[in-house]
Amino acid sequence: MLEFAKTPPKGWNSWDVYGASVTEEEVKRNADIMAEKLKVYGWDYVVVDIQWYEPGAESAAYRKFADLKMDEYSRVLPAENRFPSSADGAGFAPLAEYVHKLGLKFGIHILRGIPRQAVHGRMHIKGTDKTADQIAVNSICPWNSDMYGVDMSIPEGQLYYDSLMELYASWGVDFIKVDDIAYSTIYRDSHRKEIEGIRKAIDKTGREIVLSLSPGPARLQDGSFLQKNANMWRLTDDFWDEWELLYDMFDRCNYWSPFIRKGNWPDCDMLPLGHIGIRSGERGKADRMTCFTKPEQKTMITLWSIFQSPLMYGGELADLDAWTLSLLTNTEVNEMHRTLEGQRQEYRDDEWIVWSGENKESTYIAIFNVSDEKKEIPGKLTERYLRKDAKEIWSGKKVTEGTEEVENHGCVLYQMKRI
Amino acid sequence: MLEFAKTPPKGWNSWDVYGASVTEEEVKRNADIMAEKLKVYGWDYVVVDIQWYEPGAESAAYRKFADLKMDEYSRVLPAENRFPSSADGAGFAPLAEYVHKLGLKFGIHILRGIPRQAVHGRMHIKGTDKTADQIAVNSICPWNSDMYGVDMSIPEGQLYYDSLMELYASWGVDFIKVDDIAYSTIYRDSHRKEIEGIRKAIDKTGREIVLSLSPGPARLQDGSFLQKNANMWRLTDDFWDEWELLYDMFDRCNYWSPFIRKGNWPDCDMLPLGHIGIRSGERGKADRMTCFTKPEQKTMITLWSIFQSPLMYGGELADLDAWTLSLLTNTEVNEMHRTLEGQRQEYRDDEWIVWSGENKESTYIAIFNVSDEKKEIPGKLTERYLRKDAKEIWSGKKVTEGTEEVENHGCVLYQMKRI
Amino acid sequence: MLEFAKTPPKGWNSWDVYGASVTEEEVKRNADIMAEKLKVYGWDYVVVDIQWYEPGAESAAYRKFADLKMDEYSRVLPAENRFPSSADGAGFAPLAEYVHKLGLKFGIHILRGIPRQAVHGRMHIKGTDKTADQIAVNSICPWNSDMYGVDMSIPEGQLYYDSLMELYASWGVDFIKVDDIAYSTIYRDSHRKEIEGIRKAIDKTGREIVLSLSPGPARLQDGSFLQKNANMWRLTDDFWDEWELLYDMFDRCNYWSPFIRKGNWPDCDMLPLGHIGIRSGERGKADRMTCFTKPEQKTMITLWSIFQSPLMYGGELADLDAWTLSLLTNTEVNEMHRTLEGQRQEYRDDEWIVWSGENKESTYIAIFNVSDEKKEIPGKLTERYLRKDAKEIWSGKKVTEGTEEVENHGCVLYQMKRI
Amino acid sequence: MLEFAKTPPKGWNSWDVYGASVTEEEVKRNADIMAEKLKVYGWDYVVVDIQWYEPGAESAAYRKFADLKMDEYSRVLPAENRFPSSADGAGFAPLAEYVHKLGLKFGIHILRGIPRQAVHGRMHIKGTDKTADQIAVNSICPWNSDMYGVDMSIPEGQLYYDSLMELYASWGVDFIKVDDIAYSTIYRDSHRKEIEGIRKAIDKTGREIVLSLSPGPARLQDGSFLQKNANMWRLTDDFWDEWELLYDMFDRCNYWSPFIRKGNWPDCDMLPLGHIGIRSGERGKADRMTCFTKPEQKTMITLWSIFQSPLMYGGELADLDAWTLSLLTNTEVNEMHRTLEGQRQEYRDDEWIVWSGENKESTYIAIFNVSDEKKEIPGKLTERYLRKDAKEIWSGKKVTEGTEEVENHGCVLYQMKRI
Repeated sequence: MLEFAKTPPKGWNSWDVYGASVTEEEVKRNADIMAEKLKVYGWDYVVVDIQWYEPGAESAAYRKFADLKMDEYSRVLPAENRFPSSADGAGFAPLAEYVHKLGLKFGIHILRGIPRQAVHGRMHIKGTDKTADQIAVNSICPWNSDMYGVDMSIPEGQLYYDSLMELYASWGVDFIKVDDIAYSTIYRDSHRKEIEGIRKAIDKTGREIVLSLSPGPARLQDGSFLQKNANMWRLTDDFWDEWELLYDMFDRCNYWSPFIRKGNWPDCDMLPLGHIGIRSGERGKADRMTCFTKPEQKTMITLWSIFQSPLMYGGELADLDAWTLSLLTNTEVNEMHRTLEGQRQEYRDDEWIVWSGENKESTYIAIFNVSDEKKEIPGKLTERYLRKDAKEIWSGKKVTEGTEEVENHGCVLYQMKRI
Repeated sequence: MLEFAKTPPKGWNSWDVYGASVTEEEVKRNADIMAEKLKVYGWDYVVVDIQWYEPGAESAAYRKFADLKMDEYSRVLPAENRFPSSADGAGFAPLAEYVHKLGLKFGIHILRGIPRQAVHGRMHIKGTDKTADQIAVNSICPWNSDMYGVDMSIPEGQLYYDSLMELYASWGVDFIKVDDIAYSTIYRDSHRKEIEGIRKAIDKTGREIVLSLSPGPARLQDGSFLQKNANMWRLTDDFWDEWELLYDMFDRCNYWSPFIRKGNWPDCDMLPLGHIGIRSGERGKADRMTCFTKPEQKTMITLWSIFQSPLMYGGELADLDAWTLSLLTNTEVNEMHRTLEGQRQEYRDDEWIVWSGENKESTYIAIFNVSDEKKEIPGKLTERYLRKDAKEIWSGKKVTEGTEEVENHGCVLYQMKRI
Repeated sequence: MLEFAKTPPKGWNSWDVYGASVTEEEVKRNADIMAEKLKVYGWDYVVVDIQWYEPGAESAAYRKFADLKMDEYSRVLPAENRFPSSADGAGFAPLAEYVHKLGLKFGIHILRGIPRQAVHGRMHIKGTDKTADQIAVNSICPWNSDMYGVDMSIPEGQLYYDSLMELYASWGVDFIKVDDIAYSTIYRDSHRKEIEGIRKAIDKTGREIVLSLSPGPARLQDGSFLQKNANMWRLTDDFWDEWELLYDMFDRCNYWSPFIRKGNWPDCDMLPLGHIGIRSGERGKADRMTCFTKPEQKTMITLWSIFQSPLMYGGELADLDAWTLSLLTNTEVNEMHRTLEGQRQEYRDDEWIVWSGENKESTYIAIFNVSDEKKEIPGKLTERYLRKDAKEIWSGKKVTEGTEEVENHGCVLYQMKRI
Repeated sequence: MLEFAKTPPKGWNSWDVYGASVTEEEVKRNADIMAEKLKVYGWDYVVVDIQWYEPGAESAAYRKFADLKMDEYSRVLPAENRFPSSADGAGFAPLAEYVHKLGLKFGIHILRGIPRQAVHGRMHIKGTDKTADQIAVNSICPWNSDMYGVDMSIPEGQLYYDSLMELYASWGVDFIKVDDIAYSTIYRDSHRKEIEGIRKAIDKTGREIVLSLSPGPARLQDGSFLQKNANMWRLTDDFWDEWELLYDMFDRCNYWSPFIRKGNWPDCDMLPLGHIGIRSGERGKADRMTCFTKPEQKTMITLWSIFQSPLMYGGELADLDAWTLSLLTNTEVNEMHRTLEGQRQEYRDDEWIVWSGENKESTYIAIFNVSDEKKEIPGKLTERYLRKDAKEIWSGKKVTEGTEEVENHGCVLYQMKRI
């Protein structure tokens, strides 16, 4: 059992807004704003997503067979043109220090494996005479050409991951998102041996580094394995601001709710809210305000919260508007997200989905209108799930004598104090 | 959440020894012996398996399109030639009373659906003018021709299941095993609408009837649904005394361990121990003592117990020998089975599997030798999982200074008191 | 190898217009018009589709567990209220005779198996003391509740199919479409033993009854088996007037083209042209003129013809308009359809698909515009596939110096005389 | 339609005996013997299998990320230490010439793609300024680390394959076996764009180079595509001397028989006969005489011949014994193999499989005993398939009055002259 991440992690991640190309300045700016506006609500992780070691990254697109910045031991280092403070072998230590000083935590993304460049260059591995080609295996990421998999059947494979985590711990990293590992569309499986190796390597550092595994969909039959080895794992492929993806998440949450435990937080992925896509351009979408309607945004936050998914804001924090801020800083929703237990889907038909959960003081009922029309909640649902004194959290209203309408794709979230 | 079956059910089931053909006399005999020898160890369910309504059943084979004993409302009744006390419309009430007087509980098996005979005879349904053909759907069990599925999209479908459960509750039934419902090899899915209908029908009776769903393999993505609706559900197709099936169960237990909760007991199926197959003959095997070796038997009981599977003895209790009895009546194993939490697979390679769990007083470690040779437990496993003062439950021995050998397909089960 | 159906069968089928409910009068009317307008172009089969033995059939919907008209030997007979001439045990003999007198051929549809009604009524089978329940197996059609499968592992199973085919041959049936046999969505396979049994039963009659198997999609790995046993088999589930289904057919034709041989005609299904859906209502569509655009209709006829699919007109012939008639009676298309060899897909991209084939005198090139816009054929295609003297069959025009535009979803069909 | 390889190719391939490590001397020796003993029976291809460009190859095992011998244009060249005549840029021209002088034909194996070494070294491509990394894609062979796939969406991808085939044609290559292309276990598909590119590149050379695609199992839905593009394609993964693999081939032959045409020869793979495994060691087997029994060898040759599979001898020809020679040089079997038409599986049960085929003069019937016991052919099979005057080809005997026994896993092959 994992002894940290006792509540679901919350923070900011660079992917939805900058793709593979975020810079030090942008990271700092978002950290500053998080410290100012969100920290007090429990948001504290600042995560630099994929390819911070790729000097030529300009968007969410990867350059095939790009030259990566590495140290002598086949370990990627921050691209100095993008992260100037990393020069002279400093790595991410200065940036981590900056973030820590704000009272926040610092996270990075890595891809499973060892750079192909190191393999074909027969480069060194720390602590062994074996070279990169000798510890690599012919196993690739289907959507990125940076890495080969690592041979975990020989001790030098573990040594490589140990050397990686040692380096990251020395930088002060608090969170690692490992990609191309929780599921692979070509191998149709997770890479379990490498997950175990990374778990061990983190444990050896003695640092409470949160381990987040991507991409999804993780497989349910890996659930108990993931509970032992990781703090977070993805339920789906990348999530974006499209209703179909949000609607699909209800199924995934239903499947995965029995796996939620302190230290284990099945992950619905980043929140594509506010100003996103500035240099991302994934799924054919450019720089934009989120395409989700306001009711959809509330539905997303409500579902993620009652499911206790990690919450990673995906937009540029410098452009955070009042509405979006209100979604992230609702005290009662944040409290529920932090303390819930026993959450589950209670009901589902083609129009309505009901979730419940409880903490020591309250029972919570979320009612989602997944139809395409504004509708009144059916009497049979209010009768079955709501008490007269139930309070709707987002609006602050009590259940009235009369009826309640819910926007299409929207929701209501009720709290009922335990009697 | 289900408010009963707070510990995993234990008892006897007629299938492994009598197939579809058990008689009243045989049920009573097994109940008598359970009361005498096993009740004090927590074994208390006496379950009559499939086709007690089929006068011509002689083995585990089903007669195609057989005439079934039914009442005027399309509900199957016990075959009087096999269950004499059921005559004159008494149903299983007299037998249930007999079992209850012994301080035990009474269970029955049913197949999802409504008799085809009732459908083609256009028979009545209690509480409606609709006839059986009008509430049936063209949905069958792939391995038995007794029933059609029930149309849950009309109220009369629920009415039929209500009338069934009302009848069974009136008989004093405490446990219902519903078959052809948790998974179907032809529909490649569970029959969720009918599961929900049966759940509602049981709730309406107000009786704490344990609901057990068959056959397996239930699908992991139905796990949260099953937690809401049933007390037990099967992880595999029928389990028999073959090492391959036992070996496979380790995987299934690993997948399903996150779903274990009070009231929810994923089910490894009956224990084919002692004298079995008297009139069963499944999988080409006849009347026999279990084909499992003694180490395999201990492995089975240990795995089922640390996983908190329901425990349903499958053999003829009249022929219970001292060895088999010892497997069922170990006080510490029974205590672990009743009180465990957080059980999980800790380790697995081609030779060894380690499970752990804990209750308020102790931590338990089971180490299974799944190789085909007797072997010493590797030092790395004892070092990682066992304290010096660990006590092996089956033998009563402490971890010695020296080495410990485990039989092929056998196991050891250690208890370590919390410090 | 099958020694008849040396060219792909052509005719009319009642399904697309009358569902399961066609009457004798309607069959005769369509036969009359076929004789008058189409026979000279090679159209000669008149086929009565499903459930002619169901007195209560009113549309394409099946009544669950309906009472069927049968003879004493568990064989279905025409419903007399719908087919008056079948009274007094005459069966379809009078209607077949009527059709034969017009110089046409008569066909019927049957479902794999033996009536459930006969099974539960334990009715007789011709030529044996075994009753229907003894030769039936617990195998059903997923979408219709009339029949059970037949046990081909006992001689009486063959005897039943022999008795069926003997009866149909005695009526003068020339074509039998057997349904629920080429593929089953629940068994995910074809019912090969019953296919072989029907093949043998037909051969025993000595009558050249064309055997057509449904539904699709037949599986490619059954291809060689089907070549031995049937004249036609379906490539897809039911085909209707929707572009997506037509577009999908290009793939299926590509996969199946190597299986086309004299006597073996992989089947693209009926032509939903002209006035259809009068009492069908399948896929939520009612009485209508075909929803296909004119270019789509030409594409359908052209693809079916160059693939040498059987051609079964699906509309009401009484309402045949000049345009539709022109599609069915183009002499050169009909000639190509009758005599082609070696047809194959030559080219495919997202916008264009090219098929070719040849007979002794000509090479044919069909160019389909599968994009959603009217477009000029790319130069690279005309250069590669068309000679200067190529003649477009539908328009009668030669390849001109200039360019040729093709409607969206439309096509051109070129003939080039062998030099 | 392919205008060459009008009969199924026959020859020798180095894989089964030398794995990836064959040398020039060994190739010449086998060519010499083929010319001497087999050429007159139609055996004429001499094929150098995989990794002739790998200086360090020693067996059937591949060295991960090995340095390959290449020319300046990223094209692999023979390893000079293994093929001395290839020195000074001669490539395989001298060896091809040697083989041609014997009256034989010369073939080579290549892997789909472009060397990874060239990609990471950003090497040149003939005829373009683009470098290897620019025309490669992140697509790999799952079992060998030599190559990346080629980007066929840009003209330079075709240019690379053109340059390859131009080089091979200039050497005098008559046969190319392209691997990692007909099916990939990770992409679960064939690489059709690259197949088409290679087809075009070969056509451009103007040389009649037979194109053989590996590995299997090719998918049936690619069948018509493969007929257009290749002369041979594999039905299964690598075939070795194990009855299970031979037994499985009956299914594959049944599925693929409709695809056999002049120029298109679905490929059952090499014949692991005689002395094999000298430096192969695949599937845990070392240097050995074939593990097939004599009846199994006859079954293999008979099935491959009646199916018209290409025949590629896999053993060391220097060690060819009289028995094995007799299998390869039976005049009537060779004649049948060369001229057959319409072959198909006629019958199959758990013990017997019957195939038939015909040429202008004879009908052939092969009867295989696939059971594990020597057995007499059932009367119903001889009655159905054999005339009185049928001659068994291998033994030369006529069908006698009495009975005929067939060895377990053995066969008989009858010829009946057309009357």
